Amino acid sequence: MSNPTAAMLVIGDEILSGRTKDSNTNYLACELTKAGIDLKEARVVSDDHAAIVGAVRALSEAYETVFTSGGIGPTHDDITADCIAEAFGASIDVRDDARALLAAHYERTGGELNEARLRMARIPEGAELIENPVSTAPGFKLGNVHVMAGVPSVFHAMVASVLPTLTGGQPLLSQTLRIDRGEGDIAGPLAKLAEAYPDLSIGSYPFQQNGAFGSNVVVRGSDGARVDAAMAELAKAFPA
Amino acid sequence: MSNPTAAMLVIGDEILSGRTKDSNTNYLACELTKAGIDLKEARVVSDDHAAIVGAVRALSEAYETVFTSGGIGPTHDDITADCIAEAFGASIDVRDDARALLAAHYERTGGELNEARLRMARIPEGAELIENPVSTAPGFKLGNVHVMAGVPSVFHAMVASVLPTLTGGQPLLSQTLRIDRGEGDIAGPLAKLAEAYPDLSIGSYPFQQNGAFGSNVVVRGSDGARVDAAMAELAKAFPA
Repeated sequence: MSNPTAAMLVIGDEILSGRTKDSNTNYLACELTKAGIDLKEARVVSDDHAAIVGAVRALSEAYETVFTSGGIGPTHDDITADCIAEAFGASIDVRDDARALLAAHYERTGGELNEARLRMARIPEGAELIENPVSTAPGFKLGNVHVMAGVPSVFHAMVASVLPTLTGGQPLLSQTLRIDRGEGDIAGPLAKLAEAYPDLSIGSYPFQQNGAFGSNVVVRGSDGARVDAAMAELAKAFPA
Repeated sequence: MSNPTAAMLVIGDEILSGRTKDSNTNYLACELTKAGIDLKEARVVSDDHAAIVGAVRALSEAYETVFTSGGIGPTHDDITADCIAEAFGASIDVRDDARALLAAHYERTGGELNEARLRMARIPEGAELIENPVSTAPGFKLGNVHVMAGVPSVFHAMVASVLPTLTGGQPLLSQTLRIDRGEGDIAGPLAKLAEAYPDLSIGSYPFQQNGAFGSNVVVRGSDGARVDAAMAELAKAFPA
């Protein structure tokens, strides 16, 4: 049985202008791999209504679970919640449960729950809230889409809230052999190994170190015995 | 007149499993911003034929220029060139000009131009080669798609080869004001500023430092005088 599939959608002009480096995709990728969920695609789109709605619809139809990152804060460029509502044809307004969370938070911290902050309580009808233990303003799940914050510490906390609710598959096991030869020297035997182990994913990742070429060969699969067997053949073909 | 549009397609299982962090998208984003070309979307797909062909077609139709990164080496999982050919309905085979480059390189370096390495001379019919001053094996341009290597040093060199061939727009200027207040406190005035300057992009990027919340407000636009004016209003609204 194949693993559940997932996609990531990063929302934000600052990623596409190069100002900010997205680290949430890599974080999610590592967490999903451990949980046995296959991240199949990631996209970055700008803070643009049509672009967000289009990407949400496409990914939500193509994959079992979708995660989004970014655009759920209090400022004018935070339009993700409204776009998700539109993508699913749901209505959206300030919701009492989310407002109550924020009201309690600002009463505790002495901040003001002003009109801008109330935007963070705009939650589409029918969505379930996702807990935010870092800064309270919740994410939410609508359909198969999990809408989460872009700030990495908050994104990580929300991933931790969501992961136990997902049905995982078999965690992907992975072993790496470093071979101090260029990819072109090892490609032939590697292709034969890949043919002999069609159930495994065998990837080659070239590097350059001190002017010499080498490759990290990574063998991935959910059956540990098969991964071990392929690694043994690999080590035999390319002794250190 | 609006700037030319571009998209990035990163190809590789190793990005989606979390093993490797993609840095090419951020590099390209910074270079395009300097050149006045708007990066509108980025995608990551796995080493999967259908996924690559589908993404290439979608991005190549939606944007003026597309860049790809990854999957053009000599190993069995390097299938990008064949996928690009299929996406454009072009035939593909080892091409004499690319073979000559590789033959000269391996003669110079003493390596063997074996069957695996010859794969790197597989270039779709009608494509123009992209120079690779780092390790010779060329990238190529077919239609509006620039096919480049995943290894960052090679990707950077290929971007440098390609950029002078593109028609740029007005470089995006950007200024940042750090405001030591939470986004919720500044969102109201910020939204008014954004309304008053519809020709600029005004983004707010929250951070947490020593337990306190702050925001970096970034004003972007191609007209320096307008950016200056908006920054002056911003500084007046939020004195340090």
